[in-house]
Amino acid sequence: MQDALAALTRYWTERGCMVVQPFNTEVGAGTLNPATVLRVLGPEPWRVAYVEPSVRPDDARYGENPNRLQTHTQFQVILKPDPGDPQELYLGSLRALGIDIGAHDVRFVEDNWASPALGAWGLGWEVWLDGLEITQFTYFQQAGGMTLDPVSVEITYGVERIMMALQGVSHFKDIAYAPGISYGEAFGQAEYEMSRYYLDDADVEANKRLFEEYAGEARRMLDARLPVPAHVYVLRCSHTFNVLDSRGAVSTTERARAFGRMRGLAREVAQLWAERRTELGHPLGFAVVPEPVAAPASFPVVEGTHRLLFEIGTEELPPAEVTRTADAVRRALETKLGASRLGHGAVSTYATPRRVIAFAEDVEAAEPDAERVVRGPRLSAAYDADGHATKAAAGFARGQGVDVSELRTIDVDGVEYVGLTKTDTGRGAVEVLSGILGEIVAELRADKNMRWSDPKLSFTRPVRWLVALLGETEVPVAVSALAAGRTTRVHRLASTPVVDVPSADGYLDFLRSHGIEADPARRRERIVTDATRLAATVGGRVDFDGESALVDEVVNLVEEPTAILGSFASDYLELPSQILTTVMRKHQRYLPVRDAGGALLPHFVAVANGECDHDVVRAGNEAVLRARYEDAAFFWRADLQTAPAAMKAELGKLAFEDRLGSMAQRADRIGRVALALASEVSLDGDDLATLRRAAELAKFDLGSQMVVELTSLAGTMAREYARRAGETEAVAQALYDLELPRAAGDRVPATVPGALLALADRFDLLAGLFAVGATPTGSSDPFGLRRAAAGVVAILREHPSLRAVTLSRGLGAAAGQIVAQGIDVPEEALAEVADFVVRRYEQQLLDAGADYRQVAAVLPLAQAPAAADETLAQLRERIDDPAFAELATALQRVRRIVPEDAPSTYDPALLTEPAEQALHGELTKVSETLGGSPRSLADFTEAAGVLTVPVNRFFDEILVMAEEPELRAARLGLLATLRDLAAPVLDWQSLGS
Amino acid sequence: MQDALAALTRYWTERGCMVVQPFNTEVGAGTLNPATVLRVLGPEPWRVAYVEPSVRPDDARYGENPNRLQTHTQFQVILKPDPGDPQELYLGSLRALGIDIGAHDVRFVEDNWASPALGAWGLGWEVWLDGLEITQFTYFQQAGGMTLDPVSVEITYGVERIMMALQGVSHFKDIAYAPGISYGEAFGQAEYEMSRYYLDDADVEANKRLFEEYAGEARRMLDARLPVPAHVYVLRCSHTFNVLDSRGAVSTTERARAFGRMRGLAREVAQLWAERRTELGHPLGFAVVPEPVAAPASFPVVEGTHRLLFEIGTEELPPAEVTRTADAVRRALETKLGASRLGHGAVSTYATPRRVIAFAEDVEAAEPDAERVVRGPRLSAAYDADGHATKAAAGFARGQGVDVSELRTIDVDGVEYVGLTKTDTGRGAVEVLSGILGEIVAELRADKNMRWSDPKLSFTRPVRWLVALLGETEVPVAVSALAAGRTTRVHRLASTPVVDVPSADGYLDFLRSHGIEADPARRRERIVTDATRLAATVGGRVDFDGESALVDEVVNLVEEPTAILGSFASDYLELPSQILTTVMRKHQRYLPVRDAGGALLPHFVAVANGECDHDVVRAGNEAVLRARYEDAAFFWRADLQTAPAAMKAELGKLAFEDRLGSMAQRADRIGRVALALASEVSLDGDDLATLRRAAELAKFDLGSQMVVELTSLAGTMAREYARRAGETEAVAQALYDLELPRAAGDRVPATVPGALLALADRFDLLAGLFAVGATPTGSSDPFGLRRAAAGVVAILREHPSLRAVTLSRGLGAAAGQIVAQGIDVPEEALAEVADFVVRRYEQQLLDAGADYRQVAAVLPLAQAPAAADETLAQLRERIDDPAFAELATALQRVRRIVPEDAPSTYDPALLTEPAEQALHGELTKVSETLGGSPRSLADFTEAAGVLTVPVNRFFDEILVMAEEPELRAARLGLLATLRDLAAPVLDWQSLGS
Repeated sequence: MQDALAALTRYWTERGCMVVQPFNTEVGAGTLNPATVLRVLGPEPWRVAYVEPSVRPDDARYGENPNRLQTHTQFQVILKPDPGDPQELYLGSLRALGIDIGAHDVRFVEDNWASPALGAWGLGWEVWLDGLEITQFTYFQQAGGMTLDPVSVEITYGVERIMMALQGVSHFKDIAYAPGISYGEAFGQAEYEMSRYYLDDADVEANKRLFEEYAGEARRMLDARLPVPAHVYVLRCSHTFNVLDSRGAVSTTERARAFGRMRGLAREVAQLWAERRTELGHPLGFAVVPEPVAAPASFPVVEGTHRLLFEIGTEELPPAEVTRTADAVRRALETKLGASRLGHGAVSTYATPRRVIAFAEDVEAAEPDAERVVRGPRLSAAYDADGHATKAAAGFARGQGVDVSELRTIDVDGVEYVGLTKTDTGRGAVEVLSGILGEIVAELRADKNMRWSDPKLSFTRPVRWLVALLGETEVPVAVSALAAGRTTRVHRLASTPVVDVPSADGYLDFLRSHGIEADPARRRERIVTDATRLAATVGGRVDFDGESALVDEVVNLVEEPTAILGSFASDYLELPSQILTTVMRKHQRYLPVRDAGGALLPHFVAVANGECDHDVVRAGNEAVLRARYEDAAFFWRADLQTAPAAMKAELGKLAFEDRLGSMAQRADRIGRVALALASEVSLDGDDLATLRRAAELAKFDLGSQMVVELTSLAGTMAREYARRAGETEAVAQALYDLELPRAAGDRVPATVPGALLALADRFDLLAGLFAVGATPTGSSDPFGLRRAAAGVVAILREHPSLRAVTLSRGLGAAAGQIVAQGIDVPEEALAEVADFVVRRYEQQLLDAGADYRQVAAVLPLAQAPAAADETLAQLRERIDDPAFAELATALQRVRRIVPEDAPSTYDPALLTEPAEQALHGELTKVSETLGGSPRSLADFTEAAGVLTVPVNRFFDEILVMAEEPELRAARLGLLATLRDLAAPVLDWQSLGS
Repeated sequence: MQDALAALTRYWTERGCMVVQPFNTEVGAGTLNPATVLRVLGPEPWRVAYVEPSVRPDDARYGENPNRLQTHTQFQVILKPDPGDPQELYLGSLRALGIDIGAHDVRFVEDNWASPALGAWGLGWEVWLDGLEITQFTYFQQAGGMTLDPVSVEITYGVERIMMALQGVSHFKDIAYAPGISYGEAFGQAEYEMSRYYLDDADVEANKRLFEEYAGEARRMLDARLPVPAHVYVLRCSHTFNVLDSRGAVSTTERARAFGRMRGLAREVAQLWAERRTELGHPLGFAVVPEPVAAPASFPVVEGTHRLLFEIGTEELPPAEVTRTADAVRRALETKLGASRLGHGAVSTYATPRRVIAFAEDVEAAEPDAERVVRGPRLSAAYDADGHATKAAAGFARGQGVDVSELRTIDVDGVEYVGLTKTDTGRGAVEVLSGILGEIVAELRADKNMRWSDPKLSFTRPVRWLVALLGETEVPVAVSALAAGRTTRVHRLASTPVVDVPSADGYLDFLRSHGIEADPARRRERIVTDATRLAATVGGRVDFDGESALVDEVVNLVEEPTAILGSFASDYLELPSQILTTVMRKHQRYLPVRDAGGALLPHFVAVANGECDHDVVRAGNEAVLRARYEDAAFFWRADLQTAPAAMKAELGKLAFEDRLGSMAQRADRIGRVALALASEVSLDGDDLATLRRAAELAKFDLGSQMVVELTSLAGTMAREYARRAGETEAVAQALYDLELPRAAGDRVPATVPGALLALADRFDLLAGLFAVGATPTGSSDPFGLRRAAAGVVAILREHPSLRAVTLSRGLGAAAGQIVAQGIDVPEEALAEVADFVVRRYEQQLLDAGADYRQVAAVLPLAQAPAAADETLAQLRERIDDPAFAELATALQRVRRIVPEDAPSTYDPALLTEPAEQALHGELTKVSETLGGSPRSLADFTEAAGVLTVPVNRFFDEILVMAEEPELRAARLGLLATLRDLAAPVLDWQSLGS
C-alpha cells in the first residue's frame, strides 16, 4: 500500500503538485486540511497532493468490519484552477497505480458533495472501478460560504478500497501494507483501541468540556485575526463533536447548536483567511484561466441544403440531465431556428453522458431576403397644409437614409402613417447557425449548475468541446473559451481518443464505428437484449418493468452498454431479498436476476461502458457486491441481536429537524397521531391492538444498523426485524406499511393500522415543517413534502373507510402533537398545507387524464379524497345526461345571482308568487328527502332532479331583485337555500356552461 | 524539498522500512509518534520511516528567524533491531539525497539523548555535514522506563537544515519547497500565525484547563487498558504544556507537577503497550539478533617471538572515551598478560574515534611449563600410627590421580601437610591471547554504556570488528557475536573500505597508507602544524594553549585531521568576542584565529576527517557559522532592546530545581546570601554599593535570549548587557565574576563583590541540593556540585581577605535562605556538604603535588582554605627543621596518651613532681604568650618550641596513669591542655612519625 501512496505522490508531483503532510490534528477528510479548505479560497493558484489519514469515529468497528475503519487513508489532490483535462489526468494516475484501465470498467458516476457545516459544496462524481467507488472527484464551487473563483478540482482517492481491489483481499486487515507487514499487523491494535475510545470509553463530559474550550479558543483566534490557529480549533471542535456523536451523547438540541457554532466559525475562518491573503497581496499570484476565444470574423458560404450537426461535448452528465439536456437543446434549437428565417427540416437530439447531439435536417443555404415596413410619423403630421413634408417627416426620412419623396402611406390598425418598406438581406446559414449555437451553449442550464475553468459558462458539468458542421462545412462558433470545430472525442482510452468528423451526415454511424451509441433508445434496447440473453444462461430473467427506472439510469451512465453477468454466493440469498436488490440497485446499478417465479437468483447483470476485459470486470463487480453483502450481512446479524425496543431507543440520537426535535420525538408523535385518527374511525378489536403496538414501535428500524446504512430499507427492515422479534404479523405489516408509499405510484398500505400510521407519519411531516416554515420551494424539497402529500392523498383514496380522516382532522391531530411539544403551529400554516395536499390530489387526477372542469368541481370535496373520488365517479356517470346538465345549469344560475353572503334563510310567507311558492314547495320536499343535507352527488341528483323545472320557472317569472327589501331578501334566501343544499356535493360552477 | 522527502522515503522503503504517516496530533518530535515510542518496546521487529512535522512552540519566531520554526520537518527512521551497519545505511541515504559525501566532511559527533519525561534515553551522535548538524542518530536504550531489548536505531533528519545546506539558502523561507513554490510561500503564513498563537494569543486559562482534561482522559484510558488513546492524550498534555510554556505561563511548581504527571503517564502507557503486545502474542514476531559465534576449536602454533596486534573496531567513540579506552585496554592487556605466564615485551595502545589498537611486543610463542604444589591433609592426619596412609590421604591421592606413594611432605607456614607437585604445561601464545583478548572486549566499559545488536556486549558505542594478529598469524577470538580476524575497516568512503592486514608489524604505517593516523600525538601535531600554517596565511595564529581542551577533543573526533581555513564576515566582530568564540568552540569545534595581540580575526580553522573537497567543506562550514552568528546577532540585538531588570523578570519562568523553586528564587537567595557574607567581612563603601546593585541583578542574563541559547555565556553576557544598560563597570564586573570559576583551573573572581556573589551562588547550590538529597553520585553530578565545591575552595583560597567566610558560615547563610523558603535543611546535610567541599580542597592540594601527610595535617583548617593554605606554607617551611620535628613528635605523644574525652582542666596543686611542675610552668607561659590560643602554626611553633624538652622529660619521669585517680586526672588534664593549645594550628598526628 505504501508503494501505491508513493506512486500517487510521484505522479502528481510530476504534474506540478506540491506535497504537504497530513494535518496534525484529526480531520474527518482530506478536504479539511487547510491545504484544501483554505487554499481553494481566493484567486491564488494551488496544486497540492497529500495523504490524509481521515478519522471518522462513527466508522469505528473495532477493526472487525472488513471495509470500515475509524481511520482510513485518503489521498487528496487539489488542482486550482481546473486544468481543463482533470479527468484525463486522473486516469493517468490510475495507470501510475498499475491499473490496466483498458481492461477495467472505469466510470464517472454522478455524486455531488455538500458540507453545510463548511458552507461548502461541489459537483462531480464518484469514480467506479468495476463498480467499486475508488475516488471522489469534485469541482469545488463554494467553501466557507464563499463562491470559489477559480474553481478547484478536488480528487480524493479511498486508498484502502483501491488496495483491497488491486490486491484481491476482502478485509482491510489483509492488505499488504509494506513488504511482510499487513495492514492489520501495522494498524490493527490502534484500530481496535481507538474504536473502543470512540464507541465505549471516551469520557462524555470531558469531551463536552473540550468542545467548549475549542470553540472558545477558535472564537478568540478569529477575534485576533488569526485564521490558521482558528481553523485548528474548528477542526478540534469538529472531531470532538464526532467523538461525542459516536458515543451517542449528542441530543438533537446539542447537535443543532454545535453545528450552528461550527458552521459559523468555519465561515468566519474562511472569510478571514481570504481577507488575510488579500492583505498579504496574494503571495502565490493569480490563477490564470482560459481567455474567451475571438468571435468568428467571417462565415463560409454554402450552397444547397445540408444537415446540421451540433455536438456539445461534456464531462459525464448526471443521468437525469442527459435526457433533460437533449430535450432542452432540441427545444432551444427549434425555437431559435424558428425565430430566424432559415429554412430547415426536422430537428432531433440524442445524448449520452458525454455528449448532446442535435441535428437539423435540410437546412437551407441562407435566409431568404425579407421586407420590413418602417413606420414614420402620422400622415396627418407628415405634411403641412401645403403638402410639404413637415420637419417630422423629413427627419424620419433622413434617419432612414432615404429621400422624403420615397415615403409612402402606411395603414396601421386604421391609422395612417408615412413610412417605407425596407429589404433585409437574408444571412447565410453558417452565420445564422453560428449565433444560434453559441447562444444554446451559453444558455445551457441544469437543475444544479457549476463553474469550471471556463470564464463564463455554467452547466451541470463542464462543457469541453463543440462540433458544429453544416454538411461538411464547419460552422464557426465562439462561446466563452470554447470554439466549435469538427473534432470530437470518443472513448478516452481509444487508440485515437480525438477524431475529426467528416460530415454531419451519418454522424451517429460514425460514432458507432468508434463504439459509441448516441441513441438512448438503442442503448436501452441493447441493455435489454444482452441482459435478457445473459440472464437466460443461468435460467433467469430480468424484470425490466420493475427495473425500468434503473434501466433508464443505466442507459444514461454509459456510451456503449456492455452487459456482464456476475454472480454472488447463494448464501446471501438467506438475507431478505429487498436488502439484496436494494444494494444492487442503489449502490451498484446492477440488474437483479430472478427465476420464473420472481425469486432472486444469485446473479446480476452489470452494465460496463465500452470495451473491457469481461472477466476482470466481472470479478471486480462480484468482489464489490460481495463486500457490500458482507457488510449487509454484518448489519443483519448485528441487528438481530438487538430488540426492536432497543433499536427504538437509538432514535433519540437521530436528529430529525432542528426545531422539531429528534426522530424519537417524531416517532412518538406519529404513534399518538395514528391513535387519534383511529378514534376518528372508531377502530377497535385486533386492529386497534395492532395499531397500539405498532405505534409503540413506530420507525424503530431507523435505529438499526441496516437502515442507517440503507435508508430506503426503512419499513422493510422493520417488518423483518419485528417478525423475528416475535411481533405479530399484523404489527410487522403495519410497521412496514408505515413507510408506504415510498414514491409516486408505489403501493399504499394494505392494512388499516398501517394506513393510519402512514397517514400519521405524513401529517406530522407536513404539519411540522409547514409550521416551522420549511415549506418546499420550486427546486428544493429536502424533506420530500410533495411526496408526503401525494402519499396522504394516495392512502386516503385507497382507503375509503378512512374517510373520516379528513385533511383538516389529520393535520389538526398532527398539529396538536406538535403544539404539545411547545412549537407554535399557525392557523395559516395548516390552511396552507391542506391546500398543498389538495393540489397534489388535483395533480393526480389531471395526470390520470381527468377533465379539468370535473376535477375543479370535485376539488372542494378533496378534504376527503375518497369522497371526492366517488363524487367524480358519479359525476362522470351523469355528465352526459341532459337532465343532469339542466340541473347543473339551473344550479349555476342560482349560484350566479345569489351573493356569496346571502343567508340561506327566508320567510316563506313573503313568497306569494306561484313560481316562488312552487320552488319553495319542491325545495322543501327535496330537502326533507335528503335529510337536510345530501350524502353524495348521486343522492342529490336523484332527489334534486325535480328542481330543474321550478328553478327555471322561478327565473322566468320572478324578479329576484325586487325593490321591496324584505321580498328581495326572501327570494334570495330561497335561492340561497337551494345553493347551500347543492354546494356540499359539487362545485357546480366549475362544470362550466 | 518534497523531492528530498520522497528520495528518503524511497531509500528507506527499499531497505525494508514501512512508511507511516505523521501523527494526527501535535508532537514535538518524530520520536513521539507511536510508530517510534511505542514500537521500540518489546521484542517485535520494526522498521519504519516517516515524515514528522514537529511542533515546538518554544521555537516560534513569527517566521523571522532564519533557522527556527515552530513546526519543522523531521524525517524519522527506526531500525529494530540494529541491523549491524546502520551508519553505512545512513550514509547511503545521504547519497540518495544527492549529497556527494566523498566531497563533503561527514562526521558522527557524540550526542546523547535523554528524555526524562519519557523515561527514555539513548546514545549516539549528531551527524555533521561540513559542520552542520543534519541528523540525530541514536541507539535507543530505554523508553517508558523500560530497557529496550532489542535496541532500536533511531535516525532523525532535520530536513529544513539539510535543504538549506543543499540549496545554499540562508533563510528557511527561501528553501525551494516544490517547483515554483518556496517554503515561505507554502508555510509562511502558518508559521507567523502559529507563532502568534504560541507566543502571544493562546489563552492561558483555557490551555490550563485543556491540560487537565487531557491528563484526566489519559488516566481513564490507562485504567481502561487502552494504551493507544492514552498515548494520544499524553501527547496532547505535552503539547499543551509546551504552549503554556511558550506563553510564559508555567510556574516552577506547575512545571514540576506537570512533568511529574506526564512522566508517570508516559511510563504507564509504555508498560501497558508492552503488556498488550504480549497479550496479543506479539503479532509481528520476534526480532532476530546475531547468535554468539562458536569458541575457537583449535589454535595455531607459532614459533619465535612476535608482535601482537589487537584492534577493537567501533563506531565513533565519544572523544573522551577514545583516550580513556586506550588506557583501559592497555592496563587490561598488561594485567591479563601478567597473570599469564606468557613472556612479552612492552604493551602500548593507540586510539582513534573508530578503533583502539593495542600492541604487545615480543610475545613468546608459548607459556613455559610451571610446577604447582597441591596440598592434601595435614601430615598428622595422613598416616596412621603404623605409617599407613589414612583414608584422607588415600582419597586425596585418588582425587589427584596419583598413587598415595607419590605424596610427599609439604611445609606451609610451619605446618606440615602431605601433597604433591604438579607440572602445568604452558599453553601456546595464540591460545593464551585468544582468551585474554576476548575478556578485554567483554569487559570494555565506559562512563555511559549501551547495547546494540550484539547479544551480550555493552560499551559506549557498538564494537563492530576485531583484528587480532600475532605477527602474521590470526589469533582466533570469539566474544559474543564477534570473531576476530585480519580484516579491518578504513575510511567508510574509501574505494576499498575493508582491507586485510598482512601483519602486526608496521600496522600503524599500514593504516597511514590508508589515510588513518592512529597515534593521537601525531594527529595533534598535524592539527597544530596545519592550523598554524593556515592561520599564518591570514596573518593570524591559533592560541593552542588557550584552546588545548578543544584541540584534545578535535584530535579524538577524526582519524585523519584535515585542517581547513574558513572565514566569516568581519561585521560579526562587532559582537562580543566571547560570543563568537563560544559558538565556534561549543557548537562547531572550530579553532578561533587571532592576531598577534590576541584579537579575534574573521577566520577559523575547522578540522575535517580525511579527504574531501576543501572548497566544498569550507563553504559548508562557513555557511553554518554564518547561520549561527546570524542567530547570535539576532539574540544580541533582541537582548539589547531589553533592560536587565526585564530580563531578570524572566527568571521566574525558568525552573531551577523542582523543590528549590525557580531560577528567580535562586537568584534572590544568592543576592541575600552575598549580602550576609559581606557583613561577615564588614564590606563597606563602594564595594558594598556595588554588591548591593549586583545582588539585585544577580543572574539576570539567564533571562536573555543569548544565554538561553548559549548557557556558557552566562556572566559574560551579564557584563556586556549591564555595561550597555549603564550599570557601573564594577557592577558589570561583579555580575561577570558571579559565574567564575566555570571549571577547574578557570579564573576566579577578581573583585570582592564578585567573589562574594560567586560564593553565594555556590553555597546556595550546595546547601540547597544537599538539603533536598540531590547529592552527586559516582557518575552523576547533574548540577555540577563538584565543580561548585571546587569553586568555593578556589575563590576562598584566592581571597584570603574573605577568611571570615568559613565553609560553615557560608553554608549556614545559604541554608538560612533556603529554610526561609520553607525547605528543611538537616544539620547532617550541612555537615556532609562541608565535608564534600573539604574533600575538593584536599584533592586540589594533592593534585598540586602536596605531601599527603601535610595535607591531612592542615585539613582541619580547611573551613577557611586560605588559612589552611597559610598553615601548609608554614608547615612546609618548618617540616625539615629538627626542632619542629621534635616538637611534633612530642605533641603526637601527648595526643596518643590522652583519651579524646579527657578534659583540658586540671588542678596544678596536685602536680608535685618536678617534671610535671616544669611542664605546667612552661605551658602556662606559652599559653600566655599565645594569648590563650595560637593565631597560626608559625606563632605556635615560635612559642611552643620550648615545650619539647619539658614534654619529653614529663614522659620520661612521670607515670601518667597514676593509680590515684585525682592525680591521674590532673596529669591527663595537663597534657590535654597542651593538646588543645596545639590542636587549632595543625592535625599533628597526620604528620606521621
